[in-house]
Amino acid sequence: MDQLLESLTEILGPENVLTGEAVLERSADWFSSMPCEAAAIVRPATTEQLSQIMTLCHKARQPVVTHGGVTGVVHGAVASANELVISLERMTAIEEVDAVGGTMTVQAGIPLQSVQEAAAEIDMQFPLDLGARGSCTIGGNIATNAGGVQVIRYGMMRQQVLGLEAVLADGRVVSSMNRMLKNNAGYDLKQLFIGSEGTLGIVTRAVLRLQPRLPSEQCAMVAVPTFDALTTLLDLTSRRLDLSAFEALWNSHYRLMTEESGAHRAPLPVDSPFYAIIETQGVDREHDAERFQALLEQAFEEGLISDAVLASSEAQRQELWAIRENIEVLIRALGPMFSFDVSLPIPAMASYVADLERQLAQAFPEAGRLVTFGHLGDGNLHIMVTVGDAGRESRYAVEKLVYQPLAEIGGSISAEHGIGMEKRDYLYLSRNEDEIEVMKMLKKALDPKGLLNPGKVLP
Amino acid sequence: MDQLLESLTEILGPENVLTGEAVLERSADWFSSMPCEAAAIVRPATTEQLSQIMTLCHKARQPVVTHGGVTGVVHGAVASANELVISLERMTAIEEVDAVGGTMTVQAGIPLQSVQEAAAEIDMQFPLDLGARGSCTIGGNIATNAGGVQVIRYGMMRQQVLGLEAVLADGRVVSSMNRMLKNNAGYDLKQLFIGSEGTLGIVTRAVLRLQPRLPSEQCAMVAVPTFDALTTLLDLTSRRLDLSAFEALWNSHYRLMTEESGAHRAPLPVDSPFYAIIETQGVDREHDAERFQALLEQAFEEGLISDAVLASSEAQRQELWAIRENIEVLIRALGPMFSFDVSLPIPAMASYVADLERQLAQAFPEAGRLVTFGHLGDGNLHIMVTVGDAGRESRYAVEKLVYQPLAEIGGSISAEHGIGMEKRDYLYLSRNEDEIEVMKMLKKALDPKGLLNPGKVLP
Repeated sequence: MDQLLESLTEILGPENVLTGEAVLERSADWFSSMPCEAAAIVRPATTEQLSQIMTLCHKARQPVVTHGGVTGVVHGAVASANELVISLERMTAIEEVDAVGGTMTVQAGIPLQSVQEAAAEIDMQFPLDLGARGSCTIGGNIATNAGGVQVIRYGMMRQQVLGLEAVLADGRVVSSMNRMLKNNAGYDLKQLFIGSEGTLGIVTRAVLRLQPRLPSEQCAMVAVPTFDALTTLLDLTSRRLDLSAFEALWNSHYRLMTEESGAHRAPLPVDSPFYAIIETQGVDREHDAERFQALLEQAFEEGLISDAVLASSEAQRQELWAIRENIEVLIRALGPMFSFDVSLPIPAMASYVADLERQLAQAFPEAGRLVTFGHLGDGNLHIMVTVGDAGRESRYAVEKLVYQPLAEIGGSISAEHGIGMEKRDYLYLSRNEDEIEVMKMLKKALDPKGLLNPGKVLP
Repeated sequence: MDQLLESLTEILGPENVLTGEAVLERSADWFSSMPCEAAAIVRPATTEQLSQIMTLCHKARQPVVTHGGVTGVVHGAVASANELVISLERMTAIEEVDAVGGTMTVQAGIPLQSVQEAAAEIDMQFPLDLGARGSCTIGGNIATNAGGVQVIRYGMMRQQVLGLEAVLADGRVVSSMNRMLKNNAGYDLKQLFIGSEGTLGIVTRAVLRLQPRLPSEQCAMVAVPTFDALTTLLDLTSRRLDLSAFEALWNSHYRLMTEESGAHRAPLPVDSPFYAIIETQGVDREHDAERFQALLEQAFEEGLISDAVLASSEAQRQELWAIRENIEVLIRALGPMFSFDVSLPIPAMASYVADLERQLAQAFPEAGRLVTFGHLGDGNLHIMVTVGDAGRESRYAVEKLVYQPLAEIGGSISAEHGIGMEKRDYLYLSRNEDEIEVMKMLKKALDPKGLLNPGKVLP
């Protein structure tokens, strides 16, 4: 290792090869306060440097873990003492913004929010959006195929990427920087690197697809009396509005974020079983607001909602969204807490959550508690569970309750967070043996020495 | 081969192992009248039968070519005398339609149009749409990552597929029939089989994503005085309408389809340099028509269009689209003809086509002629060229003129038709050496004996 670090120092300069204290004061896991245990952290500035790093690591059989914003929640960036962390924190350039073609070319270490802001400057939008926007990176978004709050309209990160460049385990650079919306010239290699959590290659640059920024945005939070009403409302708004987000909040979540924690003013009374944030992006400045209100009125008359509050300014809109997105409040209130991200058929959701709640109360009668919210239109729920301690046994017991029913109802143990180390041993619940075998075949073909993010994703 | 055919006959029955005349009376190539040369055509009815077929072929090192609707235009389904054709014509079942989840589960041999119609029956839509809808199959759409006229709104086939099942070269079945909109549980294996033209596996079943059918549709054909006006109109309609299609017709195409061939009545005078078909799908039954017309009026006032005709009935709408989609008229008028499908940055299009026209006239002063149309918003042009003969030398000369400039301007030699055998030797113009090497690595990992659609895609 010492000799390798010396060679890396020659390439990167001493200020970009961190060891000792400089490593320990960093974290490799957003959900834990443990220091990073890696042997060293190296910080390349260019694809070429990263290629040199991997060429050396490949020769020395040195395993590596790539770090973007380290905001993942499945222990996908954890690094042990024999591993080297490659941080992309210096690779944050916007290389080109093409307003006509609607593309932006960036280095992978750039934070998501910087891309969103650069798109807005040319009256376009980069539609991927999630709570960690300020610190998560485009490379991390790609590696985990990030989702977020606008998937219902614009799809996941996979759909926002036109081209990318990756460094393979042996240092080879595969530059597939396509800018065309359509390109069926051979296999679509970028798909290999999207969502494979840094185990098949290290994404260094990307061509992102931008969308026109639409002139009319509407946002409301509504109180919904039953789960049936919630799904009917989703169908109605999908067909009658230009929906860009439909976020559901169970009472457990809304009440905690407002009345119980005092963190946010409650815009609606706290006694409704469900709440939803409904947002639209439309082209008709003249009629969209009117149509949005008319639809809410109709929903009220039909008993689909019992109350509603419309955001009449960007500040009010952000207040509504903060109730959904302020994850720190959840951690304070529920910690030590287990966080889950599952997908399942919408009709199965209500009973799945109710069953889970009941089983949790049985198994942990004193401290057991869960809080549910999520992207209803995507079939994606986030479930936060506390049982009073974070011990291995408690975790295992809770995981069993959360994951086991998903195999039967055709859901997934990971909707958008990925597998990392946390869900690796449960992968078999969402993927069959043949699928896992083909995954291992791909891993072996692209990273035969097993150097890239070892121990993540695959059992 | 004889022994293999005997074993296959035992599995499938004699009526499903075609040889001799029964093979020769079929075609393996839409663009040619040559008979199919394959040693035999086998017709499995189930995934299990197909798996048995491939197990036997793998043992016998027997190469195979899979046939869907055989409407591809890049010689991707051509089979030679030592190859076996696997036709999916008996695998046309709709296994399940889930109106709540918005999914349809089908066998791969089902025609696209049958899927569209089954979706419409539950007030949903399957948004992939292209001229060959009546005969092309879902399996072929997946294998070629088909595009079509609504890509601008709904994306290509890749985005319509939630899950799929494929039989590998050795007969193993990888069933990855995910129904969730979001599933980040491990590598997204389906991406391997989408767009790889049957060279990595044979798609047998798929879970398709449906979309709500929107209540309001508008359609118009407009005459556009300049290419700049055409791109400005695209930008304007993208931002102000709920665009679902924006098809551009060069004068060369429009005039041929109407006045010259007499095949279609000209809804607009034939002297405009460009035409466009503009279609929207919206949620506002009340205002969409009015807004559509107002925008066309504005475009007229700003000089972006010189004339327009609105479809006031479904019949009129189909008349407009027939001008764009009637490929038989082109073949009759231009045959022998070379057909191209390229993508390039929109700002480069006008001069690319003009240069090509000029060079063609220089190289083939007597019979050289081209006709251009395409999916403008996708950066995708279809160019039909005739030079009077279809000989190898002429083809090569025309290909050079069409493909060579694309490498420089960052375009692609195949936007949506794929590579097949036709463009294999030009792949290097759109993909670099490293990309082609990784493609070969994948091919080797999944089909080490090279049995699946040999000679297609990879040089």
